[in-house]
Amino acid sequence: MKTDKYAIGVDLGGTSIKFGLVNNEGKIKKKFSLDTHAEEGPDAVINQIKKGIDELLKSKQKIVGIGIGTPGSVIQKKGTVENPPNFKGWESIPLGSIIKNEFNKKVFVENDANAAAIGEMIFGAGRKYENFIMVTLGTGVGGGIIIDGKIYRGESGAAGEIGHLSIEEYGNQCKCGSRGCIETYIGNNYLIEHVKKELPLHKNSKLNVLIQDGETLTPKLIHDAYLLKDYYAEMIITDAAFKLGVALSSIINVLDIPTVIIGGGVSGFGKILFETVEKTIKERVMKPNRPKIVVKPAKLKNEAGIKGASALVFYRS
Amino acid sequence: MKTDKYAIGVDLGGTSIKFGLVNNEGKIKKKFSLDTHAEEGPDAVINQIKKGIDELLKSKQKIVGIGIGTPGSVIQKKGTVENPPNFKGWESIPLGSIIKNEFNKKVFVENDANAAAIGEMIFGAGRKYENFIMVTLGTGVGGGIIIDGKIYRGESGAAGEIGHLSIEEYGNQCKCGSRGCIETYIGNNYLIEHVKKELPLHKNSKLNVLIQDGETLTPKLIHDAYLLKDYYAEMIITDAAFKLGVALSSIINVLDIPTVIIGGGVSGFGKILFETVEKTIKERVMKPNRPKIVVKPAKLKNEAGIKGASALVFYRS
Repeated sequence: MKTDKYAIGVDLGGTSIKFGLVNNEGKIKKKFSLDTHAEEGPDAVINQIKKGIDELLKSKQKIVGIGIGTPGSVIQKKGTVENPPNFKGWESIPLGSIIKNEFNKKVFVENDANAAAIGEMIFGAGRKYENFIMVTLGTGVGGGIIIDGKIYRGESGAAGEIGHLSIEEYGNQCKCGSRGCIETYIGNNYLIEHVKKELPLHKNSKLNVLIQDGETLTPKLIHDAYLLKDYYAEMIITDAAFKLGVALSSIINVLDIPTVIIGGGVSGFGKILFETVEKTIKERVMKPNRPKIVVKPAKLKNEAGIKGASALVFYRS
Repeated sequence: MKTDKYAIGVDLGGTSIKFGLVNNEGKIKKKFSLDTHAEEGPDAVINQIKKGIDELLKSKQKIVGIGIGTPGSVIQKKGTVENPPNFKGWESIPLGSIIKNEFNKKVFVENDANAAAIGEMIFGAGRKYENFIMVTLGTGVGGGIIIDGKIYRGESGAAGEIGHLSIEEYGNQCKCGSRGCIETYIGNNYLIEHVKKELPLHKNSKLNVLIQDGETLTPKLIHDAYLLKDYYAEMIITDAAFKLGVALSSIINVLDIPTVIIGGGVSGFGKILFETVEKTIKERVMKPNRPKIVVKPAKLKNEAGIKGASALVFYRS
């Protein structure tokens, strides 16, 4: 009988913390979530994390370690998680050692975008690639870069900010202070905001009908409208995908990594998104890399957070 | 008495090949150049390379190896130099092993932009940095990325094509097939072409007078005009530098490497170029990296080619 190894994956978010018991093949045995209590300060958040881990440690499986994916910067040298956005009073917390001291298990902490990339490498669409660029299209646009089978962190752990590659020097103002960042075109919040503003000008768009029927404007709804052959919806998707393709072409020229994996909510735009991104890259990237370009959907989907966090354990154990 | 070690540095260019005998502190003991004969095919070029190396091997110094910086792609796995632009009939040549077999010395071959980065790391402005981005502003815009004290080559040896990062999705058409590549704004040929076209519209620019006096339009001439307080010349320089700053901000966000070294002819734009690039990056890059940004001129200047090529030997010996 084969004995599975298990890891605890903790996906720390601004609203909820997701916990999962995951085996070394990426199967989730058990999962649940708790409120983050981010507005109550770091101690409250850490208590919630401990509570969830405690619960999972009661199971009888052989647990080899704990992986935590977190927003903010993770400084591996110092072992700290710094300035996660929307976490009150959280400047620099040595989260890994706090959890290690509590449970006496191996603990690995990684920025959530990096954890997503490691998750795809260990369990998902990146298994057979030594090098790939992972893009997570969510509220923002996150990125993770895998080089020679390892996550690339940069000088201070902040590498992979693909969402803040500018494709128009005088383009949309971005919250980061720059202009034309790809996040301001395809990040969920910016995109939905933009469509809300423009929609009244597109009176014939089926999106108007869908919204009047009580639907919420989401990437999925836009994709539904596109499937109903709505021209404006198609334009939204192809334009956002084109812009992402432009950004990725630049990154591929600089990094010489021709494989791209795309996950996250906005990737619910589906086939047309992937096709447009791939076509744009193949038209734009330098010639020797054109035949090598691969653009694939992420495999981990909804449980990417938990699986990515648990993958941190299997990646380094 | 201290015994210096020497390397032979070969800087292969489309028109001439520069040869130098360089010690382990980057001092050139002897140098000369030969015609490339690129239009006569690979054998003719290789003969010229051998001729030059042969000449330098006659010297009495202890020569530990030969370094060659070349245009085109260098595929380290296969040991080949592929498709250097403007070299007739040169598809894929195992240049390293040809030279090694001839002279029985260690031979290292690297793309010239990467050799420039390694040169700055070993002998120049990059000595104290573990990570930096090297930009060479010449006919084109070349790039080399140093990560943890090593050159980053990418999946097939083509990494670092910083000149082909697009800063305007619908910008200038680039020879590479994309649009808005930074090279089309600050690469010597594109820039001079652009100024030639625009100059008649700037009748008051001192550049007109300088050209009528028989001067050739070069980055240096534009800088001379700027020093004479010519407004149009200032605009050319600051606009090109701004655009380079935009491109570098994107790269820094993706790579988390806050140190930039700039060399090559167009960097003759001088202080105003460096100041504008640095200012732009500090305004645009994500906040945690702003205080860390360093933009420095390359140190190796005119002999960067020879010194970079010889640095390949000291880098790996």
